[in-house]
Amino acid sequence: MFDRDYVQQLEQKQAEWEQRVAKEIEKRPERKKEFTTDSGIGIERAYTPVNIGAKDYERDLGFPGEYPFTRGVQSTMYRGRLWTMRQYAGFGTAEETNQRFKYLLEQGQTGLSVAFDLPTQIGYDSDHPLARGEVGRVGVAINSLEDMEILFDGIPLDRVSTSMTINAPAAVLLAMYIAVAEKQGVPADKLDGTIQNDILKEYVARGTYIFPPRTSMRLVTDIFAYCAKNVPKWNTISISGYHIREAGSTAAQEIAFTLADGIAYVEAAREAGLEVDEFAPRLSFFFNAHVNFFEEVAKFRAARRLWARIMKERFGAKNPRSQMLRFHTQTAGCSLTAQQPEVNIMRVAFQALSAVLGGTQSLHTNSFDEALALPSENAVRIALRTQQVIGYEIGVTDTVDPLGGSYFIEALTDALETEAQEYLERIDATGGAVKSIELGFMQQEIQESAYRYQKAIESGEKMVIGVNKFQMQEDTRPALLRLDPAIAERQVERLARLREKRDAGRVAAVLQRLREAAVGTDPLMPVILEAVRAYATLGEICGVLREVFGEYKAEQVV
Amino acid sequence: MFDRDYVQQLEQKQAEWEQRVAKEIEKRPERKKEFTTDSGIGIERAYTPVNIGAKDYERDLGFPGEYPFTRGVQSTMYRGRLWTMRQYAGFGTAEETNQRFKYLLEQGQTGLSVAFDLPTQIGYDSDHPLARGEVGRVGVAINSLEDMEILFDGIPLDRVSTSMTINAPAAVLLAMYIAVAEKQGVPADKLDGTIQNDILKEYVARGTYIFPPRTSMRLVTDIFAYCAKNVPKWNTISISGYHIREAGSTAAQEIAFTLADGIAYVEAAREAGLEVDEFAPRLSFFFNAHVNFFEEVAKFRAARRLWARIMKERFGAKNPRSQMLRFHTQTAGCSLTAQQPEVNIMRVAFQALSAVLGGTQSLHTNSFDEALALPSENAVRIALRTQQVIGYEIGVTDTVDPLGGSYFIEALTDALETEAQEYLERIDATGGAVKSIELGFMQQEIQESAYRYQKAIESGEKMVIGVNKFQMQEDTRPALLRLDPAIAERQVERLARLREKRDAGRVAAVLQRLREAAVGTDPLMPVILEAVRAYATLGEICGVLREVFGEYKAEQVV
Repeated sequence: MFDRDYVQQLEQKQAEWEQRVAKEIEKRPERKKEFTTDSGIGIERAYTPVNIGAKDYERDLGFPGEYPFTRGVQSTMYRGRLWTMRQYAGFGTAEETNQRFKYLLEQGQTGLSVAFDLPTQIGYDSDHPLARGEVGRVGVAINSLEDMEILFDGIPLDRVSTSMTINAPAAVLLAMYIAVAEKQGVPADKLDGTIQNDILKEYVARGTYIFPPRTSMRLVTDIFAYCAKNVPKWNTISISGYHIREAGSTAAQEIAFTLADGIAYVEAAREAGLEVDEFAPRLSFFFNAHVNFFEEVAKFRAARRLWARIMKERFGAKNPRSQMLRFHTQTAGCSLTAQQPEVNIMRVAFQALSAVLGGTQSLHTNSFDEALALPSENAVRIALRTQQVIGYEIGVTDTVDPLGGSYFIEALTDALETEAQEYLERIDATGGAVKSIELGFMQQEIQESAYRYQKAIESGEKMVIGVNKFQMQEDTRPALLRLDPAIAERQVERLARLREKRDAGRVAAVLQRLREAAVGTDPLMPVILEAVRAYATLGEICGVLREVFGEYKAEQVV
Repeated sequence: MFDRDYVQQLEQKQAEWEQRVAKEIEKRPERKKEFTTDSGIGIERAYTPVNIGAKDYERDLGFPGEYPFTRGVQSTMYRGRLWTMRQYAGFGTAEETNQRFKYLLEQGQTGLSVAFDLPTQIGYDSDHPLARGEVGRVGVAINSLEDMEILFDGIPLDRVSTSMTINAPAAVLLAMYIAVAEKQGVPADKLDGTIQNDILKEYVARGTYIFPPRTSMRLVTDIFAYCAKNVPKWNTISISGYHIREAGSTAAQEIAFTLADGIAYVEAAREAGLEVDEFAPRLSFFFNAHVNFFEEVAKFRAARRLWARIMKERFGAKNPRSQMLRFHTQTAGCSLTAQQPEVNIMRVAFQALSAVLGGTQSLHTNSFDEALALPSENAVRIALRTQQVIGYEIGVTDTVDPLGGSYFIEALTDALETEAQEYLERIDATGGAVKSIELGFMQQEIQESAYRYQKAIESGEKMVIGVNKFQMQEDTRPALLRLDPAIAERQVERLARLREKRDAGRVAAVLQRLREAAVGTDPLMPVILEAVRAYATLGEICGVLREVFGEYKAEQVV
């Protein structure tokens, strides 16, 4: 792409320049001996055409919306429409969360994202002994279709897209969403949204699994098959690097382990008899927008190019939509500090900008008080305004991939792709993602990276304001949102009333049909949907599956 | 730099791509029919090598720290050391401001920047009738050396660099600073700092002038000459586009009018008998970091390249330091809103990042409450933390000019340089900056741009959150800092005591010598310094010069 002779000449001149600079540095040293990204990729003093001399525009970047999609999955990107501004929200019961959703929509949010409480995430009802103290704490408690109806009360499901962070019991919550839509008169093929449904990363990093990995894969692909026919606009999975990164991985590991999980899902779906172009267009991804600004921009670009190549070359996907890595992004919760919490506002702002410059399809910006408590209305509004400033005020949305061609960004994109590619080869050699997870390989690699990062903070090499730099006596704290303990009691009471008033015989019958389907090989989604319609609870449905599939124990993971 | 054949082929393919996209857009239109920067430069859908095919790396960019300095004035830039974090501060009397300075230094600020009150800026003492109601309001009131001693009490002037926003009476305040240093035992050749001293932009945009333009130029070049010999590390002027932009200019006008003023100073100094390489290394600049993120990055790069070419080609400057455009940046005060003031935190964050990506030498980040009141301690700390997050946490300082090579940024840099160059040619044709100002040309052009920008906000085409987008009922206001009216009284009392206790005969004598020097052609700085040492006040010194030089009346300006 660059003139070869020119680059050769320039290489010589760049070497001379570096020599001149080396002399200056002897007198006045730079701030560090070596500069690296937070993930340990070496950073040169300056990048020039020499650093990306071998790149070919069409092969390596391509036009926006075209293979290999380095510059973005749409040809017009944010000139067409902005990313979906989607704040992850949920606490207390369906009533409280419904109010928060409405507040966010009033403030200009463009999509919903449901945070479920921990019991819901691992398939227990609010009255289960293990749920005690956790009901409504980190998200909303949803036990039955009744709760789901309240959650979306007054929110027309044909006019909003909804993401649900739910994995092991993804099928149940999706079924509840479909059933609420039915009651609103909205057919399933009009529904737009995402379920996380990425069970593999739960074993790697997040921990809210129920069943063993290989059984879980059946539930995942069951959803792929169901949605391909019945909920065609639904993103059937959100393959998540977010929690892998939060657990301490590097940027390259985040790409590699996420795409490795993606490969495993594609393989499982093909083994289940699906054609790649049948389900792959509905696969979606979820990444972290971490601290190191340009590394993050490059990460999104590298992930996009790598996935496109995998889908085309490895899986023979023909539909361009199967090759497109579409992703949601959340700013890095782990980067927020309880000290001087207002500093988090700026951290989140820069992380959000990196996600937008990297071409995200949707975005959650963290609230600055999240390290202290449930986000307050004030804090979530500031977080949303951050996205709106980026989207509406500062003009970065007016051209596609504005950083494309930057010597530094292109070199960093290449470096991340190469490193991720090497991990993928190691995982393939091990026998794929599921095997790697069972052997604890990904977990081990993440642990080592997390250790290095933590050590860098402790040594002060990696600076964190308020933690190891510019500390101060703090006398003010933002107004914190505290959860009323009565909320959990009300939830348990509602559940008790539901169990009394519903048709117990119908519930028992459908749960029996579910048991039979699970023991056999029948599709599960249609039966789960029936169970939900009969107001069988999440805990009851998951209980049946627990009986049949067994539970996975954490000890098996290194 | 790019392979010519390759770019030609690509041009064809890009045209085909654009045709494909045009069809998509017929079905799903983009958000706007035309995309432009806030300054009206057209933005393409995507930039590729085609858009910058004719660029030559060495000629147009060059290695960092080398001509034409597009990528930065130092070879290591922020790898060597970060920009100076310099918050513009001042209110009330010298005591209050001294406390604020110490607070900022404790919080990690690395340079000082003095805001003077309006009477000081136009050469009146606090007891002058025209000063009523303005003493200590928008900055600190400094009447005499005594105030200056208090202002820098406990701040060793050999270990801090200080910028002073003072123009018409710049010589007097610089003299006071030198005299305070003497009292601290710090010789003038150890002093590091900047006086704004840019009188031309006062006529164009800011309004705190005293004398007519051509007389003012004598004071400016008098300082150049004095400092070249006696205060060699001092930046003798900060040629300011900031206020030109605040007044509503476009980015290209900001570059052009600032550099035109710069050219006028260079010419005036040469007419006064100075060699270009004698004074030009101490010229510095001051720009705005405005809203449109990439336009601002490109603006800084374009200004640097254009100034280097002017100094080398037009003025034959040999010393690379004479060719380097070094600049301070302040985020755009005019972009801050009184509505939802916390949104200003994110605005300032992105503006600050654009300044850093553009290679600024020092930076002021505005406080989010500035649109409402004097900045509170809390707000100035958040503003400073914004710089620190950029400098210490997010890694954007680890390579020089990280956006260099980006097809978009390079194309935008070229476009801004070209537009600014055209303005410079028009100003040259008019007879230079002083003449253009006298004719009202710059003022007129700025007014037209300001009108267009304002109209774009009123029509909603340009969105401003809280103003024409996402408005809301507001019930909370940040804690505001209010000025105690007793402060002005105390200042006037101190001045009265000073007039009593000082040696009146010595003051009268030195003011007489100043009068004689002003009437003749003798250098003024040495006499002003003597007057300051004798505790002659700012008002007295400027009074003498007013008598001799006369005053400029605003009506003369269109």
